[in-house]
Amino acid sequence: MPYKAISGIGEFGLIDKIAALAEPTLQAVPELLKGMGDDCAIYQPSGKLRQVATTDLLCEQVHFDLLTTPLNHLGSKAISVNVSDICAMNAFPRYALVSIAIPPSFSTEMVEAIYSGVSHAAKEYGLAIAGGDTSASRSGLIISVTMIGEVEEEMLTERSGAKPGELICVTGSLGGAAAGLKLLMREKAIMLEHFENNEPYNKNVMADLHEYSEAIQSQLLPLARLDIVRLLHSRNIRPTSMIDISDGLSSELHHICHHSKTGALIHESRVPISASTRRIADELQDDAITWALTGGEEYQLLFTIPKEEYELIDDLKEISVIGEMTDPDSGVYLSDIYGMRIDLSSIRGFDHFGG
Amino acid sequence: MPYKAISGIGEFGLIDKIAALAEPTLQAVPELLKGMGDDCAIYQPSGKLRQVATTDLLCEQVHFDLLTTPLNHLGSKAISVNVSDICAMNAFPRYALVSIAIPPSFSTEMVEAIYSGVSHAAKEYGLAIAGGDTSASRSGLIISVTMIGEVEEEMLTERSGAKPGELICVTGSLGGAAAGLKLLMREKAIMLEHFENNEPYNKNVMADLHEYSEAIQSQLLPLARLDIVRLLHSRNIRPTSMIDISDGLSSELHHICHHSKTGALIHESRVPISASTRRIADELQDDAITWALTGGEEYQLLFTIPKEEYELIDDLKEISVIGEMTDPDSGVYLSDIYGMRIDLSSIRGFDHFGG
Repeated sequence: MPYKAISGIGEFGLIDKIAALAEPTLQAVPELLKGMGDDCAIYQPSGKLRQVATTDLLCEQVHFDLLTTPLNHLGSKAISVNVSDICAMNAFPRYALVSIAIPPSFSTEMVEAIYSGVSHAAKEYGLAIAGGDTSASRSGLIISVTMIGEVEEEMLTERSGAKPGELICVTGSLGGAAAGLKLLMREKAIMLEHFENNEPYNKNVMADLHEYSEAIQSQLLPLARLDIVRLLHSRNIRPTSMIDISDGLSSELHHICHHSKTGALIHESRVPISASTRRIADELQDDAITWALTGGEEYQLLFTIPKEEYELIDDLKEISVIGEMTDPDSGVYLSDIYGMRIDLSSIRGFDHFGG
Repeated sequence: MPYKAISGIGEFGLIDKIAALAEPTLQAVPELLKGMGDDCAIYQPSGKLRQVATTDLLCEQVHFDLLTTPLNHLGSKAISVNVSDICAMNAFPRYALVSIAIPPSFSTEMVEAIYSGVSHAAKEYGLAIAGGDTSASRSGLIISVTMIGEVEEEMLTERSGAKPGELICVTGSLGGAAAGLKLLMREKAIMLEHFENNEPYNKNVMADLHEYSEAIQSQLLPLARLDIVRLLHSRNIRPTSMIDISDGLSSELHHICHHSKTGALIHESRVPISASTRRIADELQDDAITWALTGGEEYQLLFTIPKEEYELIDDLKEISVIGEMTDPDSGVYLSDIYGMRIDLSSIRGFDHFGG
């Protein structure tokens, strides 16, 4: 990759390059009247729709490691994690504002690589990059994305509507993102050891990651389940509660139970875990169900529906019914493959502050 | 200030404290249906109004220095700089999402101090803190705020509508924020020298800053000119173009000329500079008009109106007419106090990347 210093083109030169990368995303949303180039983006909301808004901050060394993360994937992921929050409301993403704080070591091409990923993902999801901010950073790379979505009032889904007896559903398969992270950490350790020993660059020192591509893609390039939201709308299904799995299944299930004032019982045998994730867990002598319960950054959807609506989703292989909501006094439990009940309140996801 | 480690209350404990500080801001905006606590904030836009959205990233050591910045002021400023962008569209701020990346050295009380400032400012401006994100930071403190505002289509003001012959107006006085920054840098240098010499703490080593309070407040606790937007609406004035002065008068005037395809001529003698700013410039042997032309973070409004509307603002001491728009071929000039014309294209504001 060539290296053009940002100081050579200046802040406004950089903003012009970013605006050019955002431009192809604008046509997807005709209600956007003005994107970058003024003090604010301008758009015309429909008074018939509810709006939802979310924001996510991605910090170097906390959420990503540049040694194992391609910059365009990072840009795409910054969009996907926000789309996932919009999807968790059963809503459709419309506008994003993307801010970036850029370390001194970064070149113009590196910033463009990030925004190429941002722009590519935005086009895939059909949302407009409507604005943002750029700044120098005295330390690490920071990406902050805010996203605005829209949905009809009668389809909007919060965390709080689940009732005892309803079915607990999850999309896709779980544990893959955790498997991918473990693999990348293993490769990073090998790479660092290689560097420390002052050995010349040798690509054969790295594992052939091709066979792990599913897990690594789950970690580096997760896809928000906008396809599921479209499906729910096409079948006129409004889940009674919904959340996206960013901090592990156990933690998210607790959130739904807390907001809905219910308990829950899920079955280990029904938690969807891909064959590839199980194989990696065996190889690393780790436990795939633990990854599924506590692994972050999965970006699948967890939702509840009344039992009577089971037939509306029965034919869909991307949706698994993993258990049912229970009385609030019943707690939040996993029934393991031997039928033992395990209290999930002791098995939670990641806490940024180690609390 | 007591020191409670964030790890002691955990991420969700911290979010609860932040939500409690945001809560008093919610009642100002009845269209907000849900603030923090779900995957997204939810609100009901009016289809009759245009929405505008902006975002600003504040990075430690780039935008602020914790040695000279009280944390609650920093929280207020993070809100004000976004309100200022909304005001620059002649719009009213409604919702804010506030994200923060917190360094390992920060206590719960320090985070609460920042959000106290956020909440206080939000109440003053009548906007709701509708959501946000918290993260650990491996390096400096980062605050990212996104704000959504609303305005009737017929009052919305962009940068692009100025025409030759129109009057150039500016609110308040300029140069104060630059004066405040110079003073704080001087005090910081004295403080650091004192530390390096291992001298015991002695508050008399610091200047009595009371006499400089206007300038220091301009820098640390700027106010967005929402009062001016209210005034413009009450008099049914829609400026032909408007921008807020975040990078210095000269730079912002160039933006308006670029977007409106005009030139401009302003008069040094009419640029509003307070007596206190002039006194500080004399004391520091610096130049107040240079501060006014190039000093960032002023957060006054720069706008244009047709000559026929002069009588609508003539009585307002907070608005100064400093010149008029000219043909695009005439360039952007300052007529100094001796009547000499100075080309402002060589006098621009701050570039984050030193380009």
